Amino acid sequence: MRLSPAITELIRALRILPGVGPKSAQRMAFQILERQREGGAELAHALTTAIEKVGHCEVCRTLTEQSVCELCADEQRRDSGLLCIVETPADVLAIEQTGQFQGCYFVLMGHLSPLDGIGPDAIGLDKLAERLASEAITEIILATNPTIEGEATAHYIAEIARQQGIATSRIAHGVPVGGELEYVDQATLGHAFSGRKRVELD
Amino acid sequence: MRLSPAITELIRALRILPGVGPKSAQRMAFQILERQREGGAELAHALTTAIEKVGHCEVCRTLTEQSVCELCADEQRRDSGLLCIVETPADVLAIEQTGQFQGCYFVLMGHLSPLDGIGPDAIGLDKLAERLASEAITEIILATNPTIEGEATAHYIAEIARQQGIATSRIAHGVPVGGELEYVDQATLGHAFSGRKRVELD
Ligand SMILES: [Zn+2]
Ligand SMILES: [Zn+2]
Repeated sequence: MRLSPAITELIRALRILPGVGPKSAQRMAFQILERQREGGAELAHALTTAIEKVGHCEVCRTLTEQSVCELCADEQRRDSGLLCIVETPADVLAIEQTGQFQGCYFVLMGHLSPLDGIGPDAIGLDKLAERLASEAITEIILATNPTIEGEATAHYIAEIARQQGIATSRIAHGVPVGGELEYVDQATLGHAFSGRKRVELD
Repeated sequence: MRLSPAITELIRALRILPGVGPKSAQRMAFQILERQREGGAELAHALTTAIEKVGHCEVCRTLTEQSVCELCADEQRRDSGLLCIVETPADVLAIEQTGQFQGCYFVLMGHLSPLDGIGPDAIGLDKLAERLASEAITEIILATNPTIEGEATAHYIAEIARQQGIATSRIAHGVPVGGELEYVDQATLGHAFSGRKRVELD
């Protein structure tokens, strides 16, 4: 038995979504056609609109509908002199949700990956260098992921910053707050030890 | 920080998909906009096409682009005199994949649920009754789900069939093949005992 071509095509198209395998794509397609047709039409419209309207911020490269995003347009943030480097727009969102950072961002939209042909220009480091030369940035905070590629990318950017004489820091990695030591992976626990801080008693 | 309206709307729209919560909708939206724009456009198109073209089979109510689906159009299947009643098009697909059934289907597109206002006509039982009166059906196989609603629906249909003098059977429920007794739920194990078959030794 072959499914109707339009259903087969919908199941295939749904599989571009992260974490959606053949079985859940089929479930999604049937649910939309059986009882979510209005929602499905809205989704088609939202996809078309977002793909058409959303581009990259000219200043920080994050996803935005404007030429310069809301955060880059914020003068107080620009005056802070702090620039946080992250891999993705989702990282910006995560950091903003902590409320702990009031500076600007630069979004790499990835990380260095020479084997995949992703070099410095592909992650906007040419643009970053221009920014460092023209703006009054006093500190760069490297918030790339604690993976091999993220660390290599952070190291590369630290070199650029040193050439410009700009102070650079790396966010701390260690045991998550509320996490149990027993369930923390080896690499994180290693970081937690090498990054240990002396306890100061008054 | 507010996300761009087009991204917010896309995240909201993605949540109509079954099993997609706020966090995964956000991940999906970012992934599409960061590196799946072509796939996203194809998904929008596939949704629009499927919603426009796919309707219900006039005979069995399953989802199809034609007025009569492929299975209902198959003369050999109609001549079999067997009619299997299922709740959804996905059930048809699952049964077809077993290769064990060569008859026709009737798809309820749900089950009786009086509390939700879903009565016999809403699941097509008026149409089913017409079919039973006009077609040469010799056996009805009830393959609704082994849930309270599925059982009630099966029972209701069995009554209709009896009035028309048509033999009716229910698919067997029990311990899944390859399943371990220890992990089978109580209700299934109950079914496995009440539906036990005598072992015939030669
Ligand atoms: Zn920006
Ligand atoms: Zn049909």
